[in-house]
Amino acid sequence: MADRVYLFDTTLRDGAQTQGVDFGVADKVAIARALDAAGIDYVEGGWPGANPTDEQFFKAPPALARARLVAFGMTRRPGRSVENDPGLAAVLDGKSDAACLVGKSWDFQVHVALGIPLDENIQLIADSIRHAHARKGEAMYDAEHFFDGYKANPDYAMACLEAARDAGARWMVLCDTNGGTLPDEIEAIVRQVAGRIPGERLGIHCHNDTENAVANSLAAVRAGARQVQGTLNGLGERCGNANLISLIPSLVLKMGLETGIDRDGLKRLTGLSRLLDERLNRAPNRHAAYVGDAAFAHKGGLHVSAVEKDPRTYEHIDPALVGNRRHIIVSDQAGRSNVLARLRDAGIEIEPDDPKIATLVDTVKRREFDGYAYDGAEASFELLARRALGRVPEFFRLDGFRVIDERRWNARAELVTLSEATIKVTVDGERHMTVSEGNGPVNALDTALRKVLVPAFPVLEAMKLVDYKVRILTPEDATKAVTRVMIESDHPALERWATVGVSTNVIDASYNALHDAITFCLMRLAGAEAAVA
Amino acid sequence: MADRVYLFDTTLRDGAQTQGVDFGVADKVAIARALDAAGIDYVEGGWPGANPTDEQFFKAPPALARARLVAFGMTRRPGRSVENDPGLAAVLDGKSDAACLVGKSWDFQVHVALGIPLDENIQLIADSIRHAHARKGEAMYDAEHFFDGYKANPDYAMACLEAARDAGARWMVLCDTNGGTLPDEIEAIVRQVAGRIPGERLGIHCHNDTENAVANSLAAVRAGARQVQGTLNGLGERCGNANLISLIPSLVLKMGLETGIDRDGLKRLTGLSRLLDERLNRAPNRHAAYVGDAAFAHKGGLHVSAVEKDPRTYEHIDPALVGNRRHIIVSDQAGRSNVLARLRDAGIEIEPDDPKIATLVDTVKRREFDGYAYDGAEASFELLARRALGRVPEFFRLDGFRVIDERRWNARAELVTLSEATIKVTVDGERHMTVSEGNGPVNALDTALRKVLVPAFPVLEAMKLVDYKVRILTPEDATKAVTRVMIESDHPALERWATVGVSTNVIDASYNALHDAITFCLMRLAGAEAAVA
Repeated sequence: MADRVYLFDTTLRDGAQTQGVDFGVADKVAIARALDAAGIDYVEGGWPGANPTDEQFFKAPPALARARLVAFGMTRRPGRSVENDPGLAAVLDGKSDAACLVGKSWDFQVHVALGIPLDENIQLIADSIRHAHARKGEAMYDAEHFFDGYKANPDYAMACLEAARDAGARWMVLCDTNGGTLPDEIEAIVRQVAGRIPGERLGIHCHNDTENAVANSLAAVRAGARQVQGTLNGLGERCGNANLISLIPSLVLKMGLETGIDRDGLKRLTGLSRLLDERLNRAPNRHAAYVGDAAFAHKGGLHVSAVEKDPRTYEHIDPALVGNRRHIIVSDQAGRSNVLARLRDAGIEIEPDDPKIATLVDTVKRREFDGYAYDGAEASFELLARRALGRVPEFFRLDGFRVIDERRWNARAELVTLSEATIKVTVDGERHMTVSEGNGPVNALDTALRKVLVPAFPVLEAMKLVDYKVRILTPEDATKAVTRVMIESDHPALERWATVGVSTNVIDASYNALHDAITFCLMRLAGAEAAVA
Repeated sequence: MADRVYLFDTTLRDGAQTQGVDFGVADKVAIARALDAAGIDYVEGGWPGANPTDEQFFKAPPALARARLVAFGMTRRPGRSVENDPGLAAVLDGKSDAACLVGKSWDFQVHVALGIPLDENIQLIADSIRHAHARKGEAMYDAEHFFDGYKANPDYAMACLEAARDAGARWMVLCDTNGGTLPDEIEAIVRQVAGRIPGERLGIHCHNDTENAVANSLAAVRAGARQVQGTLNGLGERCGNANLISLIPSLVLKMGLETGIDRDGLKRLTGLSRLLDERLNRAPNRHAAYVGDAAFAHKGGLHVSAVEKDPRTYEHIDPALVGNRRHIIVSDQAGRSNVLARLRDAGIEIEPDDPKIATLVDTVKRREFDGYAYDGAEASFELLARRALGRVPEFFRLDGFRVIDERRWNARAELVTLSEATIKVTVDGERHMTVSEGNGPVNALDTALRKVLVPAFPVLEAMKLVDYKVRILTPEDATKAVTRVMIESDHPALERWATVGVSTNVIDASYNALHDAITFCLMRLAGAEAAVA
């Protein structure tokens, strides 16, 4: 079926080459499973033999329901037979459903990088693919530098592909390795190649060095290629690989092509993108196409009121199709209508003409000017709003704290740093004081605060801080800079919530965010009667 | 001349709509000047009358050498004459060389958003453009939602453009306002439009909602459009606008089109991209096409050795053409050859077979495992390397410090936080102790350390910390997380340098980075004779 496009994910192989990325086996297993659940056809798990992680992964790979697990490797070395090449053996020995072998297709590279005659390279490709096909049942040939090669010497580049095809490769994958080719060139070259090798056997592998990796992949599909390689969130060396998260909705929703992704799989895309960020401990890109938090965000009164009339006015697709949602932004450029929309989101009922709304709008503007950001801290926004409306009980009152960090030489002549926090709090009219140690000042303060509050509010026992972020708002002020702390918290009885604190003092900012986090938890779970009189 | 493409920057107008972006007048002036210096043809400075910043900017705009300054606004309101529309008057009253007026071109929008007959909208466009042309000499028509409009009702969309053209518009700009159109559709529609209005009068304005804004702009240029609108770094609402920084090198270096950018202008692109990040206090995107730190970064022994043989093997252009450079990455995936390349970069001479290199590679790997990152902290890498080779004097020795943060109610019943640091240091065999206050714990520590060191090393007086960044490496550990601090420092006699510190304790991590920053400064500027015996 000519309109079936096969999706090939290489997050765990080419994406793992990215600066700062270091997947463990558990990461690889979790990501492979999520790709499989979404309906990706091929999951390239790594390069067996290249490093201990990939070795271990391919010894006991996760069972995948629909996806085929692919092992990556290189064609045999010059001067070795396929039976006598330990690198190739390691690739094929791992447990996998298919092998993808990279080889040269640019005459210049054969001369410069391999230093062998052109014919010998063709032989490497043919031998290696034939061997992989026999061992694995499915072999693919990754034609490195194919587009540069085709422009330099089209006959030789084609001869490399045809050698792979004749040796039994299921797919010939055309790689724009240096990422420098523009979409019209990609389309023209793939069209020429597809005149000799059917598009149903051609794949495309693009890099983002001109910010065209997605467009290049779409151009190749328009020209007939039926396998698309890419990574989650465009992870990859240099400027990244083609971003599957952006490609998939365009292929399915806009070009009407059939893939392994059904409507349910499409809805998983936002979650799939976030999963990778979580595994990498990265903040999600708010501006990512389709799945970013800001992708369907509306700010400014005019847009917001038009979108509320009819979403087509400012939305190119329904965000729910890819598991995303519309965001109405609270911002200092925004006015009443946005704040009202946010109050509705938070489930706060108020008459639209209540004069307290103007006070709240002013407060939000002033705080955002100071560095507060409520976009990602809905719980702090809700507290601010409820406080402005006089509806938040004061569960506890901070009377003061002191945090000491001391770095000194211990008895074993090591320089160690200790943190200790003392905190004084009034709960229900009664003064409490406690002291605690921690592995850093904020941890010590957090521990002390919990120690003093849990006896009064046992529900806090199960509350956990799950994320802690620090942003320097005025980095040019160096150590005098204003700091914004965002905390995400979790509790078995609640959905995760986020709070924010701002100060020139990082401990202070952290306390402010902690205070909001605890108050929010108590507001949801403890009765108002527990509040300070 | 058909191959002359005009570049139109809307960073200061459409880019200013981005969530979290808030340009001041000084930012706008600095960015406009830099755009002009690079050779951008049109600089859209904002929307006079829409907000106080834009109002002020257009009262006294910077003098631009080559670029034309454009004021943005809307066509007249229904029911008002052009002479009697205060919004339009504000746009045209500001000091500018041209006006760009946005109007509807999608029948659906005319019905839903404006609620007026289709003919009346045509009249709004014609009147407004005629008036702007008469007042300014150059008028442009921004056809909002043009592609959605053309697909829904091509005759009406064309009628809107033709009304603008007949009223004297220099440019008819086709906007993909919702960003949902794919490159092949853009190319086909622009080609049809160019059959009736010459491409020399057509502009293109794309958004990145499918990650195709750059490709869409290139497709429009291939179809004949000769004005390209975009923003620096793709700044813009939702998923951003078309990224001029990526577009320009492709237009000039790859498509061979003439623009206002000469070879010197091209070399400014990396700096232009960084300037915007600086003004926004954002970390540059390492993976940005052409200008990112990682765009020409090579990691892993094979790539590095091939690139050193011939850069064409893994580089699609010479990075120097756009003001960027090649980076050899020190990383835990990398081995000797990368560390050797970095030592060369740092000007450290060592025999390639020196056994100390293996020790250094191990140390780098272990430290990177702990969370150190030397990619952006060349000074810390150099210190680490020189220490491994036994070549860094110990200018001072920390005997200990204590930092106290106290939050308490002051006499005026305000909750205030004070930070105080005590530090003990040995310099040249002599023990020094000092105490200092700060507006946060790190500032207090920094101040105390300087107080004790400046008398011994007067050269430190002129050393300034210019950037301070905190990253939480294990956010899921919440307040127990590991923290990485990066500090950038400056001194009149040196180029800026960056250092890194890691600890579970943010104060500790900051001290480590500070210690490296000061040591680096002393190593460069103070004699080794000043070191502790």
